[in-house]
Amino acid sequence: MLRDRIRYRPLMDKLASADEAAAYIKDGMTVGMSGFTRAGEAKAVPLALAERARKDPLKITLLTGASLGNDLDKTLAEAHVLARRMPFQSDPGLRKAINAGEVMFIDQHLSETVEQLRTRQIKPVDIAVIEAVAITEHGGIVPTTSVGNSASFAILADKVIVELNMSQPITLEGLHDIYIPSRRPARMPIPVVTPESRVGLPYISIPPEKIVAVVVSEKHDSSASILPPDDETRAIAGNLTDFLRNEVKQGRLGYELQPLQAGIGTIANSVLHGFIDTPFHDLKMYSEVLQDSTFELFDAGKLTFASGSSITLSADMYQKVLPRLAEYKHQLILRPQEISNHPEVIRRLGLICINTALEFDIYGNVNSTHVGGTHMMNGIGGSGDFARNGFMSIFVTKSVAKNGSISSVVPMVSHVDHTEHDVDILVTEIGLADLRGLAPRERSAVIIANCVHPDYRDALQDYVDRATVRGGQTPHLIEEAFSWHDAVRTRGTMRPA
Amino acid sequence: MLRDRIRYRPLMDKLASADEAAAYIKDGMTVGMSGFTRAGEAKAVPLALAERARKDPLKITLLTGASLGNDLDKTLAEAHVLARRMPFQSDPGLRKAINAGEVMFIDQHLSETVEQLRTRQIKPVDIAVIEAVAITEHGGIVPTTSVGNSASFAILADKVIVELNMSQPITLEGLHDIYIPSRRPARMPIPVVTPESRVGLPYISIPPEKIVAVVVSEKHDSSASILPPDDETRAIAGNLTDFLRNEVKQGRLGYELQPLQAGIGTIANSVLHGFIDTPFHDLKMYSEVLQDSTFELFDAGKLTFASGSSITLSADMYQKVLPRLAEYKHQLILRPQEISNHPEVIRRLGLICINTALEFDIYGNVNSTHVGGTHMMNGIGGSGDFARNGFMSIFVTKSVAKNGSISSVVPMVSHVDHTEHDVDILVTEIGLADLRGLAPRERSAVIIANCVHPDYRDALQDYVDRATVRGGQTPHLIEEAFSWHDAVRTRGTMRPA
Repeated sequence: MLRDRIRYRPLMDKLASADEAAAYIKDGMTVGMSGFTRAGEAKAVPLALAERARKDPLKITLLTGASLGNDLDKTLAEAHVLARRMPFQSDPGLRKAINAGEVMFIDQHLSETVEQLRTRQIKPVDIAVIEAVAITEHGGIVPTTSVGNSASFAILADKVIVELNMSQPITLEGLHDIYIPSRRPARMPIPVVTPESRVGLPYISIPPEKIVAVVVSEKHDSSASILPPDDETRAIAGNLTDFLRNEVKQGRLGYELQPLQAGIGTIANSVLHGFIDTPFHDLKMYSEVLQDSTFELFDAGKLTFASGSSITLSADMYQKVLPRLAEYKHQLILRPQEISNHPEVIRRLGLICINTALEFDIYGNVNSTHVGGTHMMNGIGGSGDFARNGFMSIFVTKSVAKNGSISSVVPMVSHVDHTEHDVDILVTEIGLADLRGLAPRERSAVIIANCVHPDYRDALQDYVDRATVRGGQTPHLIEEAFSWHDAVRTRGTMRPA
Repeated sequence: MLRDRIRYRPLMDKLASADEAAAYIKDGMTVGMSGFTRAGEAKAVPLALAERARKDPLKITLLTGASLGNDLDKTLAEAHVLARRMPFQSDPGLRKAINAGEVMFIDQHLSETVEQLRTRQIKPVDIAVIEAVAITEHGGIVPTTSVGNSASFAILADKVIVELNMSQPITLEGLHDIYIPSRRPARMPIPVVTPESRVGLPYISIPPEKIVAVVVSEKHDSSASILPPDDETRAIAGNLTDFLRNEVKQGRLGYELQPLQAGIGTIANSVLHGFIDTPFHDLKMYSEVLQDSTFELFDAGKLTFASGSSITLSADMYQKVLPRLAEYKHQLILRPQEISNHPEVIRRLGLICINTALEFDIYGNVNSTHVGGTHMMNGIGGSGDFARNGFMSIFVTKSVAKNGSISSVVPMVSHVDHTEHDVDILVTEIGLADLRGLAPRERSAVIIANCVHPDYRDALQDYVDRATVRGGQTPHLIEEAFSWHDAVRTRGTMRPA
């Protein structure tokens, strides 16, 4: 069995325990680990590292694809292993350490991390820890449920630790398409011209002598923590699909639409789920993370192909999909996140991009990351790669949060991740605002009329009316622009006292 | 002479006066005009249109490449011709009308306008008005000193008016490289792989029967209104080139650097000028607008090639360059702004992008457009195309404005055009902040230490210190974040009372 998975024989000599492998990681190192949206992360070595750090403290810079599962970010943060962390996380424990200033978190566009590494604009990766489902006859590393930044980490690091996960089905082999852009100035176009384009190798190719240890593990991926659709998310999906049906009616799109990208999480997943009961057909995805909805759309016959950088499913869906992976395989590709999120490919394919906002403002600026303008939630992830370069940039959110005490639509967002220039469509359960071709004063009228919860509509209109007296392209009362956020800070609610 | 310029004979029958041609433009139309950074705009027809509107009012939506010269935006605004204007302007008269809410201004990334037109996400162009230096044997339109959006306007419009400018030297012919991306879903990679790549035709190819009028004009382009380098801009240039020299020393760049992009205006021009007295050599530009500094660098033997979308020079430089254009021609290409600013090409070539900030904040967010958070200055232009997708994103500004009464570094920018995720390097005459790989709390320390005018340093440090007590990834006192801007509004200065 193990021999079927380690097909490059010399590596049988490198079999090691997690503790032995973790010993290669020294204080002060920069470590690149596999893992993207709780899928395919190295599991045994980081746990061994955290264990060791409790007795023998050390600090590292940890780079991953995106978020890790199995509470690893929490465990590492609690063991005080993390000095620096990039480019994304979504763990409540790590979040706490970040907001306390204990961990320096560098919140990056997900397509950019390996470009910065490759050009040595950030400190190089000393060691890579990559989960694999197999090692090929020539020493190629076959990733598991995500590719993320694993390929570039392995290529750029001096030493590589492979975690061979025996619980991951061997049918994953052949799913991946590993293409790394050539070095400048001799960089050629990335040959991806459709979501289906296969342009690379099905494994990560590195000199196998860089592999210093192979650790066998059995741990499963964590299942996704998404919630099932509720009334609001169903209404958001309905508002968006109604809008897209009208785009078809107007002749601007066909029923096959353009390839879809959808961010991670409950709302985006519910929105995609909402395409099941629509006349759209022959849909394709070119996205980062493939969630439950991807497979629901496959099963409903709506989706013909999905390209992503990871597969992250609920517990039920894992049980359904993993045994049948061979059936889905011809419809799936997993790519490096540099390629799934590459500006070149995003613009070329013309993606319809659906991402989640924490809050947006009356002029169409979006905050995706900072609660109250100061405290990190998860990070920008790939939303900036997609929103800037896609065909259509859509942001979705519920109109209120915390039992209605917080409006998701505010006079001015307290942190900007997506500027007014990058936002085409805003959707809440109340309705949809189509901002394309509108000036800021026109946008505020459409947003207030269509997206705002009735409890906050008059207050926002009053703000706009008073601001407009002062004039400007984007009228504001600068001394009052954050009064809603300040009310939350001091009184816990945006509702008038 | 005219026969040498109108080489497609049937068009001799379409010769018309500016008034006759302008009569094709009707109330409510969307008009696409040539012109990019005061270069190559149609000159006679818009003037005739403004003249007519004074007697017979009409309103249009005006699309251009970027800003217009010859006070055209002012004249059109004063004649109340403009209902809507996109994607950029830089005229004080139009700015006034925009901020008064009289003209709806849609401030867009310059690469995106024609994508939105092509996919009919914004209203189609009814008529195009394009300045040309010649019409070829087959009816191809040869642009003058800019390409901008002219090619797509001519391709997408039903009717085209050509303004044949006899004062523009015929040596401009052969300078342009007109490549239009193929329609999705059959879009292939854009084959530009170096600044020198020629991938299209030297003229705009449309069915010549779409040309309804040819107007002969003699008006010159306006010269650029840039100021010569002063002590501060020289210091900014020195800080930036010192930094780049250190990048070479560290082995991260060679002395030929990466291709350079520089925004329009006095500061960016001065910074490029500053490369003359440095050891850098064999530089290339892949930019939007080619200014005086481009030709100074050619003459100094520093620059080997420059690709742009327009040439905008000072009066002196026009007199020097235009007669010698044939000598420079092998080192120059003018492209559609969709290609000069295309995310695909920007990322592939790995541009060093130098753009001007109006203000930036202690965490690295940049405001390029809105004075006091409300009033439009010029527009974002191409800076967002470049900053998001380039190899290195640099923003430059003087540390103070208005005789020191306004600090260009503030607790929080009053409008965000470039988010913290998109800003690598900040430069003022005081010094340079290298933000690569830094978390927000680390960025504020570097920015305050290196970029802030001494008069404001203590106040910013005090803000950070008090904000940090409250915690967060990006510490702020949300109720005080705009107090500096509010002081300008109420007291005209950021200096303490």
